[in-house]
Amino acid sequence: MHENYDLELLMELVRQKKFRQLKEALGQMNEVDIAEFLDELDVEQEILVFRLLPKDLAAEVFTYLENTEDQEKLIGALSDKELREVLDELFLDDTVDIIEDMPANVVSRILRNTDTSTRSQINQLLNYPKDSAGSIMTTEFVYLHPDATVEQSFARIRRVGLDKETVYTCYVTQNRVLLGVVTVKTMLLSAYETRIGDIMETNVLSVTTHEDKEDVAQMFSKYGLTALPVVDGEDRLVGIITVDDAMDVIEEETTEDFEKMAAILPSDKPYLRTGVFETWKSRIPWLMLLMLSATFTGIIITSFESALNACVILTSFIPMLSGTGGNSGSQSSVAVIRALSLDEVEFSDVLAVLWKEIRVAVLCGVCLGGANFIKMMVVDRWLMHNPEVTPLVALVVCLTLMLTVVCAKIVGCTLPMAAEKVGIDPAVMAAPFITTIVDALSLLIYFAIATHVLGI
Amino acid sequence: MHENYDLELLMELVRQKKFRQLKEALGQMNEVDIAEFLDELDVEQEILVFRLLPKDLAAEVFTYLENTEDQEKLIGALSDKELREVLDELFLDDTVDIIEDMPANVVSRILRNTDTSTRSQINQLLNYPKDSAGSIMTTEFVYLHPDATVEQSFARIRRVGLDKETVYTCYVTQNRVLLGVVTVKTMLLSAYETRIGDIMETNVLSVTTHEDKEDVAQMFSKYGLTALPVVDGEDRLVGIITVDDAMDVIEEETTEDFEKMAAILPSDKPYLRTGVFETWKSRIPWLMLLMLSATFTGIIITSFESALNACVILTSFIPMLSGTGGNSGSQSSVAVIRALSLDEVEFSDVLAVLWKEIRVAVLCGVCLGGANFIKMMVVDRWLMHNPEVTPLVALVVCLTLMLTVVCAKIVGCTLPMAAEKVGIDPAVMAAPFITTIVDALSLLIYFAIATHVLGI
Repeated sequence: MHENYDLELLMELVRQKKFRQLKEALGQMNEVDIAEFLDELDVEQEILVFRLLPKDLAAEVFTYLENTEDQEKLIGALSDKELREVLDELFLDDTVDIIEDMPANVVSRILRNTDTSTRSQINQLLNYPKDSAGSIMTTEFVYLHPDATVEQSFARIRRVGLDKETVYTCYVTQNRVLLGVVTVKTMLLSAYETRIGDIMETNVLSVTTHEDKEDVAQMFSKYGLTALPVVDGEDRLVGIITVDDAMDVIEEETTEDFEKMAAILPSDKPYLRTGVFETWKSRIPWLMLLMLSATFTGIIITSFESALNACVILTSFIPMLSGTGGNSGSQSSVAVIRALSLDEVEFSDVLAVLWKEIRVAVLCGVCLGGANFIKMMVVDRWLMHNPEVTPLVALVVCLTLMLTVVCAKIVGCTLPMAAEKVGIDPAVMAAPFITTIVDALSLLIYFAIATHVLGI
Repeated sequence: MHENYDLELLMELVRQKKFRQLKEALGQMNEVDIAEFLDELDVEQEILVFRLLPKDLAAEVFTYLENTEDQEKLIGALSDKELREVLDELFLDDTVDIIEDMPANVVSRILRNTDTSTRSQINQLLNYPKDSAGSIMTTEFVYLHPDATVEQSFARIRRVGLDKETVYTCYVTQNRVLLGVVTVKTMLLSAYETRIGDIMETNVLSVTTHEDKEDVAQMFSKYGLTALPVVDGEDRLVGIITVDDAMDVIEEETTEDFEKMAAILPSDKPYLRTGVFETWKSRIPWLMLLMLSATFTGIIITSFESALNACVILTSFIPMLSGTGGNSGSQSSVAVIRALSLDEVEFSDVLAVLWKEIRVAVLCGVCLGGANFIKMMVVDRWLMHNPEVTPLVALVVCLTLMLTVVCAKIVGCTLPMAAEKVGIDPAVMAAPFITTIVDALSLLIYFAIATHVLGI
């Protein structure tokens, strides 16, 4: 996607210090785009431009800045009064997000500049575990009384709504216990004198503060929600989660899944903002582990050295066998991992999954084996005149291929499900891990068949 | 995530034909859960239970059914009157989604049972290309006149709002041209006599009907939107896209990316609902292609047969070298593919990406090479008493390892960016593809170094 604004022009305005024109241009822009533009500037310019923004816009822009070090320097450059103005405009959950990324001295300065009630709410939100629903919720929601009329409720929304993240879904509570929800749409379509308790939806989806935030985000896409209430152990409403935060969680978790599947330790910074050393740290552990575990394949080959010596052509098919085995296994594992994360499959389906994968594997194995037999006979033997490629050698290779594909698919589908069962993230069981196992398996099968069929 | 309802109990009620109790239980359930439950039943039961649902709920449940064949049979079982009632309750974009999955005779029956204006809107929506913004938008939105007051606008929302997918964001138009948006929140917080034109936001994000739906979905998460207007070439408002549809697109596209990265052709059905033959069809093409392209690695090995004969121990390190190379390459490619799809990186960043990857690769290469040298000396030579593993052989293997890691990371980061540049989906350039290239590269490096250093 391309920028919705002219970056070059804005940069030019900054360079020429044409601040009046710049201010005008910024007024026409979306807050996310302004943040993107600020991220391109160096800190001194950033502070200058940030001061040009009207208060309410400044706060929104601030939450979208990518670079936490810049955020920190920006806070450092603001006077207490300016900081208070920005904080006043922020939604509570955004303030908490910022605080989580800041060093202690900045945090205490932020807390000093918020009022007592906000401060206690912030402290409460900071206490929820990192991956819990509590950590992504906000305590700023509209609650209504079941005995209030629609007219009274609209008056209440007008009075308290400005600071709330959403006013469209209101929560009906009595003694803080969640009784139901009512949307502004329902209220708009009802008569003014209707009692809220009579039009509220009592069949409410809710989560508890300690639920995993990934499961919560999945509920948004499963049920098509825009907001979800969060309750404590006694069914008392303590906060709400809005769809934009759920989308952020889904995006983060998807990136994490991609990383895990590529044997990268998850990082939470954008690609180009992660330092070389940091990137190295996230990549080397799995590379090292997988490299050292390849010791087994080495041992297998060494112990069949005499067989390989007797029939050297066998060596040339090792990369093809392990490659095809790895690809077959990773197809199954990725398909199962994705199905698990979308809740299409759970552990109790393990036999159905296994049965399906075995049938697919046999089909794939027969096709690949057949194609490879023809290729070895036509290309290797006939076109390239390689006398070592006898029909018997081709048979050994193709039998190995079929068995490897079947084993690879069985390993590929069972490992992620077993991981899910014992509470490990199935994404870790993707391609690199499977490939290493399948490499060893395919060699064992290869040499077993070769020694039998070729009598070496 | 576990079901929010007791599946066994519901099944028991169906089996015992306790329809009154069943109806009561269904009334307490979310429409998505009811659809999930219906998906578990066979078609005759499904039709029976579906008839128990109140009209408005029935329509919603219908859109959430996973199995299009069941949807088709259900439509077949409904009388024209019942079908009309369901269709009346459906949002237009859901009707279009259903029509897209149905055979021609069912489509014509559906169209026969909708009124003329709906039918022409459906036909219009069906005409947009499959992956365009137009294909996921709905034409049911609330538009307001800039000269109307807040009070008049609320009256309008009450009058027309019931059938609209969202009433919270209203679109201000004049002669169908989009002038701005105004949210119900803004209206609620303004005086009744305020003119809409004075409170509308004129700085509106919008897309055209032909924009790619994946880019559009990304805009929702980038800007935290709940609805986005769609305009034609003359800036006339033709529809809106809501956040739930954007989330569906993101989920679909993520699944597709996972599949492409695992060398699977994308399918749009859930894992367990895809038949064995269908699954085979989506997996065999890439497996076949990658297997046949492994011919090159075979040729490389064959042409260095004499070198391998002179020093057989070299063979035992081939799987480790190609495995580590493949893993290194896929780390880079997946990181870059994800960054591309999140718009963190674009083609113009290619040099920055390359420079970063080279530095990371050198760091990784040195660590892996060093660790491997120690492992070969300590484990292979000293502990396992393998006299063939000389320091010179270890040097050859470790030099190859370092060079392979660097090459793999360079290939891994440039191929996806090149693909993006020429308009191929970068996800195709993930692990399996990279692995095949890196396999051949690592062998070429290996034999070149071995023949030089070992003089064989």
